[in-house]
Amino acid sequence: MKISVIGAGNSGLAMAAHLALANNDVTLWNRSAENIATLKNTKTIQATGRISGNAKLTEVTDDIEAALANPDIVLIATPAIAHRDLAILFGRHLQKDCIIVLNPGRTCGAIEFSHYYSLQNNPITPEIAETQTVMHTCRKLAPDKVKVMAIKDSVYLAGLGKMSNSELVASLPYPMRDHFTPADSMIQTSIGNVGMILHCTPLLLNSGWTENPDFSFKYYTDSITPHIGAFIEEIDRERLEVAEALGYIVLSTKDWFHRSYHTPFAEAETLYDVVSRTEVYYDIDAPSTLHHRYILEDVPYGLVTLETLGNLMRVDTSYTSLIIDLASKLLQIDFRATGRNLKGINLQSVYSALLRQDRQNNER
Amino acid sequence: MKISVIGAGNSGLAMAAHLALANNDVTLWNRSAENIATLKNTKTIQATGRISGNAKLTEVTDDIEAALANPDIVLIATPAIAHRDLAILFGRHLQKDCIIVLNPGRTCGAIEFSHYYSLQNNPITPEIAETQTVMHTCRKLAPDKVKVMAIKDSVYLAGLGKMSNSELVASLPYPMRDHFTPADSMIQTSIGNVGMILHCTPLLLNSGWTENPDFSFKYYTDSITPHIGAFIEEIDRERLEVAEALGYIVLSTKDWFHRSYHTPFAEAETLYDVVSRTEVYYDIDAPSTLHHRYILEDVPYGLVTLETLGNLMRVDTSYTSLIIDLASKLLQIDFRATGRNLKGINLQSVYSALLRQDRQNNER
Repeated sequence: MKISVIGAGNSGLAMAAHLALANNDVTLWNRSAENIATLKNTKTIQATGRISGNAKLTEVTDDIEAALANPDIVLIATPAIAHRDLAILFGRHLQKDCIIVLNPGRTCGAIEFSHYYSLQNNPITPEIAETQTVMHTCRKLAPDKVKVMAIKDSVYLAGLGKMSNSELVASLPYPMRDHFTPADSMIQTSIGNVGMILHCTPLLLNSGWTENPDFSFKYYTDSITPHIGAFIEEIDRERLEVAEALGYIVLSTKDWFHRSYHTPFAEAETLYDVVSRTEVYYDIDAPSTLHHRYILEDVPYGLVTLETLGNLMRVDTSYTSLIIDLASKLLQIDFRATGRNLKGINLQSVYSALLRQDRQNNER
Repeated sequence: MKISVIGAGNSGLAMAAHLALANNDVTLWNRSAENIATLKNTKTIQATGRISGNAKLTEVTDDIEAALANPDIVLIATPAIAHRDLAILFGRHLQKDCIIVLNPGRTCGAIEFSHYYSLQNNPITPEIAETQTVMHTCRKLAPDKVKVMAIKDSVYLAGLGKMSNSELVASLPYPMRDHFTPADSMIQTSIGNVGMILHCTPLLLNSGWTENPDFSFKYYTDSITPHIGAFIEEIDRERLEVAEALGYIVLSTKDWFHRSYHTPFAEAETLYDVVSRTEVYYDIDAPSTLHHRYILEDVPYGLVTLETLGNLMRVDTSYTSLIIDLASKLLQIDFRATGRNLKGINLQSVYSALLRQDRQNNER
């Protein structure tokens, strides 16, 4: 299958390598030419860990025309901050029907992408979809080397076009197809984003520790204490209430830990208890700066969007809003203005994307 | 002189010892009898450091009638959280004119004290005053032992009764008299409180570090990083704007460092630069809990009062409000409801106390 992977970061490299090793025809695009200088010469990614081998790519390019020449599927593996610009680029250059998947969409990524794409009046109407999270737990070791520590199962995928979510998953290239699950609703992929719960608050409420060059700490186990755990459970409650107001029940972060990492918990236990018992997190170092995607991506493309939806649905999101205010004032960035605030997007498109019942699932 | 010292904590012990060693007739009162069990027997405080010797007290008691029997001056050396209850007790039991000094008042302590005192309809009208900060930098080492590391000069004092601030200072017993300075305005003692600037935000924005039993840090030098320093300068700016709206210019926290610790600074330097260069702070350990006076006292009796005054004067206090929200939500305590919000206090009394020009100073 002809696949274009957009973005040569951690997850883009892993995705491109994985698909190429499975004999797909893979083009890798990256905005900055410098980051792919080595790969442009060798066209080979060295993968280790859960996938391994020298993955031979068909093309490595920073030319969007080349990346959009003839793909069956485009996989966007960039930070959410790039989605808007990419949507505009795609609107100007896409010349053929295809499936576009945001890996992941963060919160309402597919809705925003579709909006900015449509502003270009391109007669091609691709299927636009998003995933709840990345498929590979991985690190880029060098410009042409990636290590894959884990591959997730059952990552939710939801689209907002004519194809059902099941049809979308069935259209994915092997081996992606086995790792994705059709979501019941885009609420599950968009409001199911737990990064915004786990990343923003603990980092901000340990700002000094994070910024002080003389100290380091393990992110999940050291920084999330009982008071911080209780606070993020309140943001999580707001997230669940927004989803419920839209008519869909999403998993709590506690349940998500159970589903993703099989961390058991008893009814009375707190999110703090659960996090502190999740071994896969024990070795994850904390960032050493507040200018980190835990804030720069998860606040504007997670919490800001959650707050916007909360306002639309008249759900109180005061814990969420407090953290957006804190991040904005501390970093002197107006995250509500720059983030995914759904302003300018027709409300009906937002609702109809989020409330769309999946055809296949309805037929069950 | 006959003096009653209220409160047998760090500062109460130091004050009682200092005054007794200077041959004053000192009664020490404490709400809980357990804390003064030893002192009730020995009536002797062992002082070391900048003052030293065995200070012989006249009386040690938990009986408020005994403490208020016949004092010339009552010095209240309790946390601000006790001021309201003490005002009511004093209103019920005071039988003789005297001077009552809150050491310190935190923010608007004398105004609140006067209000709750007056609700008891006691015909006696004592002179009620407050100081900007404590006179002794000290630690209680045992129930009857105190170590005084430093004695401050020029601590501002302001009253709200008939006596001018100069007359009040002149009426203080030796050796207190030498360490206090008549304030130009109660704005200087009340809004001059910098504890609320330095204590609340750095602790809250290092919540995990504070609460985690496996880590410790130096409060001022480790936890205040450039972003946190810039944030507290914004709260400080709001504080200065509230004072200015009331018609009085108070020192910025940066200037206060210069005045208190002689820390030099150049025009372009930040509060972060100044704090990190103040050697007297290098060894001060951070609290190991959020349930600490840095939050429990400085939020409700500092920031909440500042925000209230900001609202009255239509000054934007959004940085201050954010920290009150954060403290309230993180500790699950409604600090606006429980703190010194000036609710129920006649606005005219607040204004006239804060705007009162000092007679003596006017005559200069």
